[in-house]
Amino acid sequence: MSDLTHFNQQGRAQMVDVTNKETTFRTAAAASSVRVNQEIYEKITAGEIGKGDVLGVAQVAGIMAAKQTSTIIPMCHPLPLSGVDVSFEWIVKEQTYTLEIATFVKTTGKTGVEMEALTCASAVALTVYDMCKAIDKGMVIGPTYLMEKTGGKSGDFTRENIE
Amino acid sequence: MSDLTHFNQQGRAQMVDVTNKETTFRTAAAASSVRVNQEIYEKITAGEIGKGDVLGVAQVAGIMAAKQTSTIIPMCHPLPLSGVDVSFEWIVKEQTYTLEIATFVKTTGKTGVEMEALTCASAVALTVYDMCKAIDKGMVIGPTYLMEKTGGKSGDFTRENIE
Amino acid sequence: MSDLTHFNQQGRAQMVDVTNKETTFRTAAAASSVRVNQEIYEKITAGEIGKGDVLGVAQVAGIMAAKQTSTIIPMCHPLPLSGVDVSFEWIVKEQTYTLEIATFVKTTGKTGVEMEALTCASAVALTVYDMCKAIDKGMVIGPTYLMEKTGGKSGDFTRENIE
Amino acid sequence: MSDLTHFNQQGRAQMVDVTNKETTFRTAAAASSVRVNQEIYEKITAGEIGKGDVLGVAQVAGIMAAKQTSTIIPMCHPLPLSGVDVSFEWIVKEQTYTLEIATFVKTTGKTGVEMEALTCASAVALTVYDMCKAIDKGMVIGPTYLMEKTGGKSGDFTRENIE
Amino acid sequence: MSDLTHFNQQGRAQMVDVTNKETTFRTAAAASSVRVNQEIYEKITAGEIGKGDVLGVAQVAGIMAAKQTSTIIPMCHPLPLSGVDVSFEWIVKEQTYTLEIATFVKTTGKTGVEMEALTCASAVALTVYDMCKAIDKGMVIGPTYLMEKTGGKSGDFTRENIE
Amino acid sequence: MSDLTHFNQQGRAQMVDVTNKETTFRTAAAASSVRVNQEIYEKITAGEIGKGDVLGVAQVAGIMAAKQTSTIIPMCHPLPLSGVDVSFEWIVKEQTYTLEIATFVKTTGKTGVEMEALTCASAVALTVYDMCKAIDKGMVIGPTYLMEKTGGKSGDFTRENIE
Repeated sequence: MSDLTHFNQQGRAQMVDVTNKETTFRTAAAASSVRVNQEIYEKITAGEIGKGDVLGVAQVAGIMAAKQTSTIIPMCHPLPLSGVDVSFEWIVKEQTYTLEIATFVKTTGKTGVEMEALTCASAVALTVYDMCKAIDKGMVIGPTYLMEKTGGKSGDFTRENIE
Repeated sequence: MSDLTHFNQQGRAQMVDVTNKETTFRTAAAASSVRVNQEIYEKITAGEIGKGDVLGVAQVAGIMAAKQTSTIIPMCHPLPLSGVDVSFEWIVKEQTYTLEIATFVKTTGKTGVEMEALTCASAVALTVYDMCKAIDKGMVIGPTYLMEKTGGKSGDFTRENIE
Repeated sequence: MSDLTHFNQQGRAQMVDVTNKETTFRTAAAASSVRVNQEIYEKITAGEIGKGDVLGVAQVAGIMAAKQTSTIIPMCHPLPLSGVDVSFEWIVKEQTYTLEIATFVKTTGKTGVEMEALTCASAVALTVYDMCKAIDKGMVIGPTYLMEKTGGKSGDFTRENIE
Repeated sequence: MSDLTHFNQQGRAQMVDVTNKETTFRTAAAASSVRVNQEIYEKITAGEIGKGDVLGVAQVAGIMAAKQTSTIIPMCHPLPLSGVDVSFEWIVKEQTYTLEIATFVKTTGKTGVEMEALTCASAVALTVYDMCKAIDKGMVIGPTYLMEKTGGKSGDFTRENIE
Repeated sequence: MSDLTHFNQQGRAQMVDVTNKETTFRTAAAASSVRVNQEIYEKITAGEIGKGDVLGVAQVAGIMAAKQTSTIIPMCHPLPLSGVDVSFEWIVKEQTYTLEIATFVKTTGKTGVEMEALTCASAVALTVYDMCKAIDKGMVIGPTYLMEKTGGKSGDFTRENIE
Repeated sequence: MSDLTHFNQQGRAQMVDVTNKETTFRTAAAASSVRVNQEIYEKITAGEIGKGDVLGVAQVAGIMAAKQTSTIIPMCHPLPLSGVDVSFEWIVKEQTYTLEIATFVKTTGKTGVEMEALTCASAVALTVYDMCKAIDKGMVIGPTYLMEKTGGKSGDFTRENIE
């Protein structure tokens, strides 16, 4: 449906009625990133080898935020998530240090988990920022976007590259 | 202090001790954005003129998320926010439609409100995405970054331009 | 069943066992109201025509509270709401200005959504009060009551008029 | 100030800036009620004498909701409550059974606790409804209103009678 | 499965994928306790006879915490609880006064409710501590353990005695 | 004061009035533990050397729970925590494997942080249980107790040994 479906007949917001949607298996994958300076890059990666684990804390934050999505995003339906996963990859080139964040969320429900995947990715990135901001406040988060979704009446979606 | 201050002596995460920091007035401003397609742009802006107000809902989401920052970001200290504001600006050029989001947060406390401003901006952007995703799932959120902070021992910070 | 079913055999509260109830479609509608003075009435309605939208914020608050019902009401079962809607009507007569609030909630679950509809209506009314109390603290909320429910073993319910 | 102070210059909602307000001692008292039928009245009061205590559960719900006020009411500032109390009184006359609810909240902060007292009273009433609705869904909540506030720049407020 | 199933292939935590688990009826029972001194024992039990009911408040806290389990325990799946019950027993011998706490939780879901039963028992015990700590801070909570679970692929579990 | 101060004059619970208490620096330390079998002990400790970090996740859970204490424990006052730390020690002897948990919480406030330290320790232990329960459900949590507190009118407290 190609409409701003969250608005009721008085023109205001509502949590749209999904009663008649089918309960099906649905997945979503989202991406975000944090661009950091060399010092932060070196401290995070060194921390991983030892025991201090910025990414470990960020991952927990992301999983907990995924479960809170419907309390953070006003018109989002509560969904019983059946799996949440977060992975990281460092892209280092020409003095730029970018932590790529990928999130994967699954449910069996009446609406998709796009927002859960995006909220998870955002919380992961924010937590990395929080834990490193004593070194440099110039970190940049994102772009944050949906990479893929499957399931549901609107069909599958795969994002073409972000240029 | 230029250190990953969230880790305790066992190398694991802690909420850092700010007991001896002074309680002072602090502000932070953050930015995010949502790049949408022409159809979404037109529906949101038309909605503003009538009564359907995507930006109104997003704004409420951002303010409520700002107050929840310390429950979303694991190592973030709870702070009594004394003011939260969100503003929007559309940048339209050459078939690209970008909703610029700016957030402003104030407190009188022992730590800064950078995370509150960034979390607020993220929640605003996510809510815009949620309310428009029935039209197009290809929207892109961010970059999200700190624009400015004032107050606290580490001094003021103003971001140079994002290129 | 005509019993205070929330109490266990030791005479204390419990969240009653609904394991054997059927998962069926259920709806509930509740009503509340806020009686305001003329100045508030005029400012809210003027705000609607422009962009300041007290009712828009209140509506978001109501929808978010509906989703939080089982965390606010101790013995209430968590339910996957499939739709929440809020509408408003002004009743103006003889110098009294009353904002009537109606809420509609749907689920497919083992218990009804009466509490979700009532909690939603209460949060809407409280938010209106909050946003207007700088003008007058004498506003009166309610009566708040269930208008209608459908579904579930106890059958349908329709309230006769509040006199 | 006699203005809808929650709206920013773009005409949308904000959490108003209270930075320059003084931190002072503030109190608020609110009232609500639940009108029940004879059967519910008799079972609640009998329960009080034994161990089943509807009012005890409702009271806990009210105190916990008071602490959550700034997460339920979007533009409400978080406040460190220093005391919350709830009391009950039954008014029985001519076949009507009304549970009167009074709440008292205290803080030392920059904004008043009117919303905390009103939210507390609402949660108490909703919980009574929830625990007795198996007997009769026709209970009526409220009117709910502010009885008194003290402290703060806007001065004291005492409500004249609800007729 | 006998593995630390919460870790993903990068060696970090995830909320494990339960998509393919069957939705079945599951129960869990957990135990905790609070060892108090004679003065606390006498005041709590006297309170029960009158109207002050430490155990009543603790019970509400436990039920509410059970519903919050997936927001407190990071890798725990959200579950629609269908019943929560808490009971108490005093064990008094040779100048020791122990409040035994038993919790019972039920769901129909894809994962078990062991964590809900244990979190409920912990919250009950912590609340008893909180309400009595003005008399003596030397109370001891626990041991806290799973007594029994039923349902799910891993089969039933009954704990042998804690010696 | 040696009284059950959480009860009001009607004999029911209240959040006690701390308005007149002084705002002072306060600390608390609490202890809990998880007794595990040999397989769990070996997998957790091996995980620490690599990247899978049960204790890392548990630590995050504890810190986040400390900040949520006043929403979990009904009569607990909200407090602006200024520091939270968690540390671990393994006690291995004669085929028993016990993970000792110590938590340290600081605030500058009107009430102590005993409950925050105890709630933190409980959440840490529960999370360890959750992440290892696929191997063995027979783990035992606690005893959980206050080790020390400083600050406040009731003076300092140091626990004598748990025998």
